[in-house]
This record gives sequence, C-alpha cells and structure tokens, in this order.
Amino acid sequence: MSEPEPETETSTATNRMGRVLLVGAGPGPADLMTVRAQQAVKTAQALLYDALVAGEVLELAAAACVKIETGKRAGRASMSQDAINALMLSLARRGLEVVRLKGGDPSVFGRSGEETAFLARHGVEVEVIPGVTAASAAAAQFGFPLTHRSQARRLVFATARVEHGVLAPESWPALTDPEATLALYMARDSLAVVGQALIAAGRAPDTAALAVENAGRPEARLIRADLAALAAAVQSAGCTGPVVIVVGDVAALAEAGQGGDKACATPP
Amino acid sequence: MSEPEPETETSTATNRMGRVLLVGAGPGPADLMTVRAQQAVKTAQALLYDALVAGEVLELAAAACVKIETGKRAGRASMSQDAINALMLSLARRGLEVVRLKGGDPSVFGRSGEETAFLARHGVEVEVIPGVTAASAAAAQFGFPLTHRSQARRLVFATARVEHGVLAPESWPALTDPEATLALYMARDSLAVVGQALIAAGRAPDTAALAVENAGRPEARLIRADLAALAAAVQSAGCTGPVVIVVGDVAALAEAGQGGDKACATPP
Repeated sequence: MSEPEPETETSTATNRMGRVLLVGAGPGPADLMTVRAQQAVKTAQALLYDALVAGEVLELAAAACVKIETGKRAGRASMSQDAINALMLSLARRGLEVVRLKGGDPSVFGRSGEETAFLARHGVEVEVIPGVTAASAAAAQFGFPLTHRSQARRLVFATARVEHGVLAPESWPALTDPEATLALYMARDSLAVVGQALIAAGRAPDTAALAVENAGRPEARLIRADLAALAAAVQSAGCTGPVVIVVGDVAALAEAGQGGDKACATPP
Repeated sequence: MSEPEPETETSTATNRMGRVLLVGAGPGPADLMTVRAQQAVKTAQALLYDALVAGEVLELAAAACVKIETGKRAGRASMSQDAINALMLSLARRGLEVVRLKGGDPSVFGRSGEETAFLARHGVEVEVIPGVTAASAAAAQFGFPLTHRSQARRLVFATARVEHGVLAPESWPALTDPEATLALYMARDSLAVVGQALIAAGRAPDTAALAVENAGRPEARLIRADLAALAAAVQSAGCTGPVVIVVGDVAALAEAGQGGDKACATPP
C-alpha cells in the first residue's frame, strides 16, 4: 500500500476533500461534552487533541481513528500552531473527517479564529461545535453564579498576559469594574503578579476571590481567599492542574459541597 | 388518593426530601445540551422550564414527568421568582427529583445564585449542570471566535440594563475596552440606546458588530453591521426571537456559511 501522492492546493478533483470539526471537549468528564461533540469524536477518522483533554473523552473515539496529541505537557515539546495547521490540512486533503479537540469551548481562548481562517483559506470546510467553558464548570460544581443580580451585572473573561515577566499595564484598568465578575484563565503561575496588578489598578484587596483546579472533574479543588491572599493560598495548595480564577462578590457564594470534603482548601 | 399534608420546614423525618437540579438547556437543539443535562431531563420527575427552552428538549422528559412552564411568552404572564422558588421547594418536599431547566448556562444571567441560595436556606440539596451559553453557540455556528490573538484579548458578557427608559451611565465605560469582545444578552429591544451609549462612552462607531437571532438553532439569522448601524439593521430584519449581540473586531470574521443562505441579513 503506497502513501497518497502529495497534493497541490488545487488538486481536489480526484480526491474528495475531508473536513475539520473544531470541537469543544468541555471541562473534562465525557458527560460534560455536548451530545453533538461526543458524536463527532465517535465518528472521527483523525483526532488532534490538546494535552488537557481527558482520557475518558479520547476513549470515545473508534479504534481505527488516528489520534495525535498536539499540546504540551511537562517535559514534552508541543507542536507549533503552524505544524498543527499543516497537519489538519494534510489529513483533510486525504479525505478524512478530522476532529480538532480542545478543552472547554473552542471560541474562548481556543484559537478557533486562527484555525478557522487558515482552513478556510485552503478551501477546507470547517464546522465548530461549542463546549462548556471552565468558568461555567467551576461555577456549577461549587454552586456559585458567574453573574448575580445587583452584585455582578457583568462577567469578564481574560488571561493573565505576562510578557517578559511584566504585565501589560494598559490592560488592567479594564479588569477592575467592581460590578463585574472576573474569570481569569491560565493564571496559575502568574497569580501573584496579576493580583497585585488588579489591586494597583483599583480593585479592592479584600474582594472575594477563588481558584478552582481541575474545574468540572471529580478531583477538582476549590481554594478561597480574598484577592490579596489568593496567590499565596494557591501556592501553598500546590496546584499542578489547570486553574481558573474567579474574582468578585460571587466568589463568596462558593460552597465546597459538590466537590466533596477534600475540595476546599483554605489559606494557611 | 389524598394530597400529601403540608409540611413545615423541619418535617423531613417522614418524607424523603427530593433535590433540585439547575440544568443548562444550552442554546436550543437537544444535541447541544451536555450528556449529563440530557440524562437529568430524562430522569426528572418534575420539570420547571423557561419559555426559551425548545420543544425538542422537553420531549426528552418521561411521559409521567410533571412539566411546568415558568417563563413569559407574548400575551402570557410569567411566574414571579418567589412563585418559582416556592414551587421548586414544594416539589422537592414531596420527594421528587426536580429539574429546573434554563436556556444557555444557569450561571450566566440565569439567576442560579438566587435559586441556589433559596433552596440551600430551606435544606434542599442542589446540583448545577452547566450548559453552552448563547454567545458560544453563535460563535460556533457562524465561524467567528469570541477571543482572538492580539485583537480580542478579553471577553465581556453584559445585559442591556435599561431602567425607566434610561441606561445606567456608570456602567458603560466598563464596556468600551477596545481589546475586548462585548457579548450583550437581552439587548434586542434596547439596542438603539445601547449602541449610542457605547459610542458616547468611547467605543468607535465603526467597530464591527453583529446580532444573531436564535443562536445555535437551525433557524438562526446573522445580521452584521458596524456598531453605529446595527440597531437599524436588527430592526429592519424584524427579529422576534432571542438575540445575542457581539461588538468587536471578531464580528468581522463571521460567515453566513453554517447558517445557510438565508442566515445573513444585511442592513438596508
């Protein structure tokens, strides 16, 4: 059996072009994926998945499905975005139904815009299947809302953008709205700097805050402290999994309940 | 068969207390619910649902399940929040598995905080099952991201809060961050006022913007215009369903593609 000939961008006459589905895997457990997302994984012929996608989600795929990890994990290099793009294109050109599986929702900090634009430029049909984002999973699991009448009228999603060890200072005033809940993604390792920046920009140091490690998963942990103390609390809890941070009055409503007894760590 | 005796708040010794699941129905189609949410609806003994929940979702429930609509629809009064709370409590006290079904995600503009607090005060176990929120569904369906490298580093969810015909002016500067995508819920009928307020507060009139009516559903419609023109475009499109508004550079990336030929309305 020989490999298919390399194809030029215009040689779609002989081979049926496949398509790419950008699929939200949600926060972890397979039953927190949408039914449509599960179906896409079950029928995928090739699956490109980020490191944060849980094993039980990957087990939904057929035995014959080609599964390729694209994300980084401690000690292993991740594929560059260019390499991921090229791989998706190559697999689609072989006529395969390709599923690009991302933790959470592809449209929220998931680079769906870059991947969609690249594939569209090369004539590949793209479909996006939404997912539950980590902040929604954290809120559901620990019983606090992300918006709340009269206290949290707005909800802001941001990442902790630290470049060369320094936060871009123009960003932070936009994140100090006292009537907004702030959900911070990818902030575990920069939380000390982020907390200080938010306080310097005007958010009260005693604003309620929390961190959830592994939101949505059975092993999730809730860590609560005020904004000034949260970084130390997270550090002493020794989080190694993905962490979502929530800053605002709603954080005071969180309960350890659904996560079980071990789910609530308190600052030292 | 007689009705159960009215119970006082402490009389849980004789009857097993039921529980309440606050469940996100997602944007409409049953296959855009999570697997866990579908399972909850299928096993519910009582179902309290908002008017926006689609018929195909309600059809998942068992024939014996008590189904009660709580939301408002044109020409019909809606139940007050107090009445909904009292009904959930009454059903749980009868030992029933109660599902409170809300469009989208219960934690985002879904009053999950109020209902969770009320039920917890009365000793009722509550579980929240997250869902896909309308903005994520709109982004997936029309192929645009909600965040995008270097253009849309943040994402803000807000409602259009119009009180006595006037917008609360202190709110709007928080919504003019030029590096943020703004997703506005429940803004269809106040969009002219909202658009003017955003521009007055400093958002550029030619900022890309769009509206999606019935996001996530097969009959969804995409309406694109710049911020200054969007209200007129939405009005001339004659939207009657729920509308989510997206303001920011990402709106320029939307495509009519997945919604079909009729999905893109352009301003007159």
